[in-house]
Amino acid sequence: MKKKMRVMTEKPLNAETPIEALRTWTTDNEVFFKRNQGQIMQRPIKLTTWKLSIDGLVKHKLNLSFEEIRRMPKVEVTNTLECSGNSRSLLEKKASGNPWTIGGVGNAVWGGVWLKDLLTKAELKKDARHVSFEGFDKPLGKAGIKFIRSIQLEKALDSTLLAYEMNGQPLPLKHGFPLRALALGWTGANCVKWLHKITVLDQPYEGFFMDRVYRVFQKGEDPKTGGVVKEINIKSIIVEPANAETLPAGIVPIRGAAYAGEAGIQAVDVSVDDGKTWQPASLIGPQENYAWRHWEYLWEVRQTGEFTIMARATDTRGRQQPETANWNVLGYGNNGIREHAIIVQIK
Amino acid sequence: MKKKMRVMTEKPLNAETPIEALRTWTTDNEVFFKRNQGQIMQRPIKLTTWKLSIDGLVKHKLNLSFEEIRRMPKVEVTNTLECSGNSRSLLEKKASGNPWTIGGVGNAVWGGVWLKDLLTKAELKKDARHVSFEGFDKPLGKAGIKFIRSIQLEKALDSTLLAYEMNGQPLPLKHGFPLRALALGWTGANCVKWLHKITVLDQPYEGFFMDRVYRVFQKGEDPKTGGVVKEINIKSIIVEPANAETLPAGIVPIRGAAYAGEAGIQAVDVSVDDGKTWQPASLIGPQENYAWRHWEYLWEVRQTGEFTIMARATDTRGRQQPETANWNVLGYGNNGIREHAIIVQIK
Repeated sequence: MKKKMRVMTEKPLNAETPIEALRTWTTDNEVFFKRNQGQIMQRPIKLTTWKLSIDGLVKHKLNLSFEEIRRMPKVEVTNTLECSGNSRSLLEKKASGNPWTIGGVGNAVWGGVWLKDLLTKAELKKDARHVSFEGFDKPLGKAGIKFIRSIQLEKALDSTLLAYEMNGQPLPLKHGFPLRALALGWTGANCVKWLHKITVLDQPYEGFFMDRVYRVFQKGEDPKTGGVVKEINIKSIIVEPANAETLPAGIVPIRGAAYAGEAGIQAVDVSVDDGKTWQPASLIGPQENYAWRHWEYLWEVRQTGEFTIMARATDTRGRQQPETANWNVLGYGNNGIREHAIIVQIK
Repeated sequence: MKKKMRVMTEKPLNAETPIEALRTWTTDNEVFFKRNQGQIMQRPIKLTTWKLSIDGLVKHKLNLSFEEIRRMPKVEVTNTLECSGNSRSLLEKKASGNPWTIGGVGNAVWGGVWLKDLLTKAELKKDARHVSFEGFDKPLGKAGIKFIRSIQLEKALDSTLLAYEMNGQPLPLKHGFPLRALALGWTGANCVKWLHKITVLDQPYEGFFMDRVYRVFQKGEDPKTGGVVKEINIKSIIVEPANAETLPAGIVPIRGAAYAGEAGIQAVDVSVDDGKTWQPASLIGPQENYAWRHWEYLWEVRQTGEFTIMARATDTRGRQQPETANWNVLGYGNNGIREHAIIVQIK
């Protein structure tokens, strides 16, 4: 019954959610996309000895046990998580990186604590401006580069969760057991897994994964001059029918998911004639902050032939998906309407 | 990591969700409670040949394929499902039936179609008043009694789903693959699994599972004179700490879930002194119609000793949980505050 993930690399594991598994509002943990830079440390993490350190520009350095975190006010939030490079392989012009189709995304209900509550406990010093996260994954290459990422203090205080539960389970090992940083509405790169070290800084963390990658830049430009990949772009994906499917005439349900990072989804429109005309889709299912919105358009088709189907999302801030994505060297944030078109045959 | 279900009977399978698995807002399908009267038919259900019939007081009898159902407008709703006999073993006076503690309940996001849409397609005849559901489970005993249940037409048209998806998966076999009736906010007995036959009637279906059980009656009374078990009672359960747990003084998080059938949860209060005084709990997590609401009270305790902890829910209609449940022969609907008290030791 269960569809398998599409594995792009085994070590480290990079695999995308099968499109069928995107039909449900929550995404099954087992097939929820996995994106790793390094491999997971082999030594098992024991909850009884595990600690989370909070260090840097704080008045009280903290070293919290899992039990201490569990005793803090609990938060349960839905959050759609997308890989920075999702849909990269759909860009018309090739970009470097894992060839994601649309399955580098998923939606889950997460349980944990607000990062704000920990930072309040530690008391920020006056010059605190950024917060960096470090996990237990193996450092990369001979240089031993660690996957460390930082976010602005504003985001850390406003809407960043430290999650220890995911969709009805304790956070699974492959998703960052026992704790994952979740900057709500931001891409996966900002959501460090196997989190064990938080450092408060006066400037963004400097390192390979901040300065050389997860930057939007053009050929010939220094990556560091490009913008850091943060919020998830407004986007819609079509999960039914599948691209290149042949279908009988009659009622053809066109269904998908739309999301817009920190914003909500206002509307989704569908075109079945290559973008010439658009019809409104119905928004269906639960409506929760930071979670995608499922949508549906029941297409009544009497003609046979080839049809190009597209979906276009508008968010609660009035932003709309671009017709074509802004290309960049590492292929981040592909949310183009045309790039996400599918072609079906009606027989 | 995963806790095992507590199995009460193997054939047919009756097993409850482990309390730890009730901590998350959605309940993992694998450990989501299972309550069966008969065993599941052994012949495999093939989606390509499976049909759902709609018969009885309709103008057009229908025989729908799974694909035809999938082509109808899709619905995704959250719904907390509780076994009619949940918490039976916590009643002070013993009642007949499976000895459920609090784990005969779970919350899921379900995908499917409104029963109303199918009934509209079939066109109801003027004297239609009830709708019965029949599944593929084996008839019981020598008499070959089938598990058939009916609900009022009003409920069938207002808020009854036919579900084919559950929490990120196609509806699992143990939960009724491929289709389950879900009278939202009503107990599991009203939510027939392996559904393949719907009959529209002018009066309630008459049969063992309508007239002899799932009725609230006292000793010496004819079951048929008792009320039919329908809507889930307003109730709150404590999922942390566990009953009889010994805990260190300090901050003790008291957490649980509250639900009220078709109504929402307005407030939950917690008592740590055997009901003498009450403090408001915080309602946390997603808020969706028909879904339970999680709640939390961070108890700061400095004294050692034995404490009796209780939770009391109030719903959006102003109803409150009773201090003690209304006992009945088959022990349905136990929602008493006292019956759900836990005792902990603070050392």
